[in-house]
Amino acid sequence: MNHDEQATWQRHCPVPVPLDGERITLAHGEGGRVMRKFIRESIVSSLGDEVLHSMGDATHLPQIDGRLAFTTDSFVVSPLFFPGGNIGSLSVYGTVNDLAVSGARPLYLALSLILEEGLPLAIVDRVLESVAQAAVATSARIVTGDTKVVPRGMADGLFINTTGVGQLIGPVPPGPSSLCEGDELIVTGPIGQHGIAVMCAREELSLEPPPQSDSGSLVRVAVLLREQLGTRLRTMRDATRGGVTAVLHEWAEASQHTLTISQADIPISPSVRGACELLGLDPLHVANEGTLVAAVEQGFADLALRALHSCPESVGAARIGRVEQRGFAPVTIRRTLGPDQPLDDPTGAPLPRIC
Amino acid sequence: MNHDEQATWQRHCPVPVPLDGERITLAHGEGGRVMRKFIRESIVSSLGDEVLHSMGDATHLPQIDGRLAFTTDSFVVSPLFFPGGNIGSLSVYGTVNDLAVSGARPLYLALSLILEEGLPLAIVDRVLESVAQAAVATSARIVTGDTKVVPRGMADGLFINTTGVGQLIGPVPPGPSSLCEGDELIVTGPIGQHGIAVMCAREELSLEPPPQSDSGSLVRVAVLLREQLGTRLRTMRDATRGGVTAVLHEWAEASQHTLTISQADIPISPSVRGACELLGLDPLHVANEGTLVAAVEQGFADLALRALHSCPESVGAARIGRVEQRGFAPVTIRRTLGPDQPLDDPTGAPLPRIC
Repeated sequence: MNHDEQATWQRHCPVPVPLDGERITLAHGEGGRVMRKFIRESIVSSLGDEVLHSMGDATHLPQIDGRLAFTTDSFVVSPLFFPGGNIGSLSVYGTVNDLAVSGARPLYLALSLILEEGLPLAIVDRVLESVAQAAVATSARIVTGDTKVVPRGMADGLFINTTGVGQLIGPVPPGPSSLCEGDELIVTGPIGQHGIAVMCAREELSLEPPPQSDSGSLVRVAVLLREQLGTRLRTMRDATRGGVTAVLHEWAEASQHTLTISQADIPISPSVRGACELLGLDPLHVANEGTLVAAVEQGFADLALRALHSCPESVGAARIGRVEQRGFAPVTIRRTLGPDQPLDDPTGAPLPRIC
Repeated sequence: MNHDEQATWQRHCPVPVPLDGERITLAHGEGGRVMRKFIRESIVSSLGDEVLHSMGDATHLPQIDGRLAFTTDSFVVSPLFFPGGNIGSLSVYGTVNDLAVSGARPLYLALSLILEEGLPLAIVDRVLESVAQAAVATSARIVTGDTKVVPRGMADGLFINTTGVGQLIGPVPPGPSSLCEGDELIVTGPIGQHGIAVMCAREELSLEPPPQSDSGSLVRVAVLLREQLGTRLRTMRDATRGGVTAVLHEWAEASQHTLTISQADIPISPSVRGACELLGLDPLHVANEGTLVAAVEQGFADLALRALHSCPESVGAARIGRVEQRGFAPVTIRRTLGPDQPLDDPTGAPLPRIC
């Protein structure tokens, strides 16, 4: 690898990428000896699950009692590493969180890699290490996988798909169509952290302190809310692409109510606020990867918040608004001064490729 | 789109790609209104599964009795369309076949798309139509999905991940470590069709007739073998990347026996034979996408072949060899003249990006 290439990869990765280290070749994805060795020595040994060791095409799993939850996500974040995480940990937390907020206990993950020829193995190893750590942190087991390699220039380093299976634990929250007038809206932490951290890393903006992604597990937070609230918990959703705004719009559409929030109540860290002002972004539109929005029955927000504040992942939780009869807009916001205004659902998100 | 771009996309696709048709933008993947409209109008309406219509992050599924099979595959084939199939049908058959040969009834699929900005929607629609048809053909339901868009030049048109869940139906074939001396080896049809079809399409080689991919469902073939043979069926495997050679090497390693095949017995179509001679390839190394290798107890190959010949998908099935005590090489081949020779496992496959 020449120095220019090294610099390109180095931008993706905080650990030193050796000039003369091994790199991904087309043979790593083509079914022969090189691929089998790579899977055995780099992938299976990093992830270390005994089921994965069998390396068959399909993995066999024990019976799961009760209903299942099933979800998939592909991750194309750029750069691959950002303050607070990387594409590996993100791909585990993203899928596990989708299972958790839907009411399931995450059990199994499938992990599929699309690698670009020339990608340094040092980067692959570091990403897989994070995958393994995140899997342990969420008690989800990676039990099957796939590896493909595309020629140089046909992908952007590394894409990951994770698909998860979970066991639904009753009572499952009834979902956004059950929202009623008076229900209270909560976020479990300061918003916009993930999108802003990725954006600052990508644009090499040196804010001090650098904004940190909230990428992390929502398993404990989801369990806590369910245990505390039971059937008083209407629905919850991790506020990923499209941010809190996208969640509120989906819920407004599903329930045919108006969801109204108050700007003064929305938790935002100083570094995200500063970066959003600099970049001209509304943090409500910016993605989170370890923060959820929950709707709870009227009068139960305080109980929920007391529980959330006892848990490190949701110590910054806050009530941000409530559900009302459908008014002049599906989602409205009370800015610091003046009357309620519609909160628009952006056509696309302002920040591409944050997950 | 200008004429050059149109020509580039047209090479991927046999249907006319309109110069002024709609194209994928970054907003199609960014969580806002454009993405939701695209998912509703293009994806969900094509696939038409009522579970998918809920569009939540995780889908809830009824309890599955007994053990599960779980498998994942990403598809990066180039070009996207080839004689006999396209990336859409391939992505369904590939994953469903992995479930079927492992002993499961395919039930549910997750479908995840990575789209390149600028991709004509006409291509997306055509691919999704094939996904839907293949799902119907295999009775597998697409119940959850994800869509990401990457900027122009950061992917090659369209990548698809499919992850499948199936219900294991007993008795499950015991697998390659159970192979015994004397076991007979069968392929269910002429080999090398898929890899050669993709290669000829990619290189624009105009052979007459053009080689057709065998991409298709192995569900009926797998069920037939299991019903006819019961516990006499040791193992089966679809011979995808790395071709028949890769399967034989994996089985030789798992069983510590030698697998020996006879060149004269291997079914190969004239067009694949011709293309392989032209390209300097051994069809044993070339990928199949609707052909499996099975190992059956000594004396049961005839029974298996009679059943297979009654089924349109396996009318070209043939016995190709047997399992012997471990000799001088893990896999050997008797060429038309002369003694047995080792059949090497290539380091990488000679044909990149065939799936």
